[in-house]
Amino acid sequence: MPLQSDYSLYLVTDRSLAGGRSIEEVVGAAVRGGVTCVQLREKECSAGEFVDLALRLKAVLVGTGVPLIINDRLDVALAAGADGVHLGQSDLPLHLAKKIAAGRLQIGISVSSVAEAVEAEAGGADCIGISPVFSTPTKTDTAAPLGLDGVRRIREAVKTPLVGIGGLNVSNAGQVISAGADGIAVVSAIVSALDPEKAARDLLREIGR
Amino acid sequence: MPLQSDYSLYLVTDRSLAGGRSIEEVVGAAVRGGVTCVQLREKECSAGEFVDLALRLKAVLVGTGVPLIINDRLDVALAAGADGVHLGQSDLPLHLAKKIAAGRLQIGISVSSVAEAVEAEAGGADCIGISPVFSTPTKTDTAAPLGLDGVRRIREAVKTPLVGIGGLNVSNAGQVISAGADGIAVVSAIVSALDPEKAARDLLREIGR
Repeated sequence: MPLQSDYSLYLVTDRSLAGGRSIEEVVGAAVRGGVTCVQLREKECSAGEFVDLALRLKAVLVGTGVPLIINDRLDVALAAGADGVHLGQSDLPLHLAKKIAAGRLQIGISVSSVAEAVEAEAGGADCIGISPVFSTPTKTDTAAPLGLDGVRRIREAVKTPLVGIGGLNVSNAGQVISAGADGIAVVSAIVSALDPEKAARDLLREIGR
Repeated sequence: MPLQSDYSLYLVTDRSLAGGRSIEEVVGAAVRGGVTCVQLREKECSAGEFVDLALRLKAVLVGTGVPLIINDRLDVALAAGADGVHLGQSDLPLHLAKKIAAGRLQIGISVSSVAEAVEAEAGGADCIGISPVFSTPTKTDTAAPLGLDGVRRIREAVKTPLVGIGGLNVSNAGQVISAGADGIAVVSAIVSALDPEKAARDLLREIGR
């Protein structure tokens, strides 16, 4: 796995939002547009299918330097030879995940408060997802939006790479970076875009400003 | 993990069938009645809750010699320090599961045909679940019932320990053993019983005949 990943523009997949396009097609275009990290998030498929999808995305990403992160299922991440796993607060506890991964995976954690961020850093998380920054229709089980002020407060509390997620797009991506995030994560802003490559390029430009 | 488990009477849990009793209560009683193996099967909970449940069952089973098997999630099995994982045909592929488990877990596989049983044995499965032997209301995603003749045909084809599952109870448990299974697995016959301890004892008597 990469020793230090670039989380600037972090794509989280959702097949149901891809308008019938394959996940490989959308991810391939997004990476050409400059996405720096890809998380495969699948809640409604079997582990076997999840591994298949991960291997297909790995084939898309090979040689690009873009890491593949698997949502929730550490076993799928290991089975597919992915670069990392991303865990929610109700997924595997971080200390157990680290023990099982044994250095083979980057581990990201979603947090919705300063306290959770501090705990994730103390536990050795490689990346912290601030979720949600703004309200989002993509995910319905989230806490109250933290806003830009929440990003600032978490930035003051931890040194771990921070990625904001939730309701992010070209109109607010730059503000999230200015508030202290190292990167922004998006689902629909790229997955649902008519032109995912251009959507990624436009987002990257806002992040770089 | 035990080098060789006793699969004679294999309990598969289902909280929704326990009539409001805790899973620890039902499993504790079942083990007093003679259950030799317990599989925790949870499809509708987060990985964090799954680990919690597994640790609670482990506490119930400590010192009894009865192994704890986790359904589907190999990462949960490793996180909880369970004895094994049980995989369906659409779960993690056996060869990848074996690689990740690296000898730390027994691996069981569900099969619904002679061909799948032969493949599971060739892949090094520690236990094969024949599913379903008879039709069952507990699981709706199963193949056509194999019947006692299916158990016989699979027994002729493989040497791996065989456990029948699906519609099994005191009235047919003995026949499944006579057909060549090493054990029988039940869900509702124990989980839904008013007296799980007695239900287990009655089943064990039929198996021993």
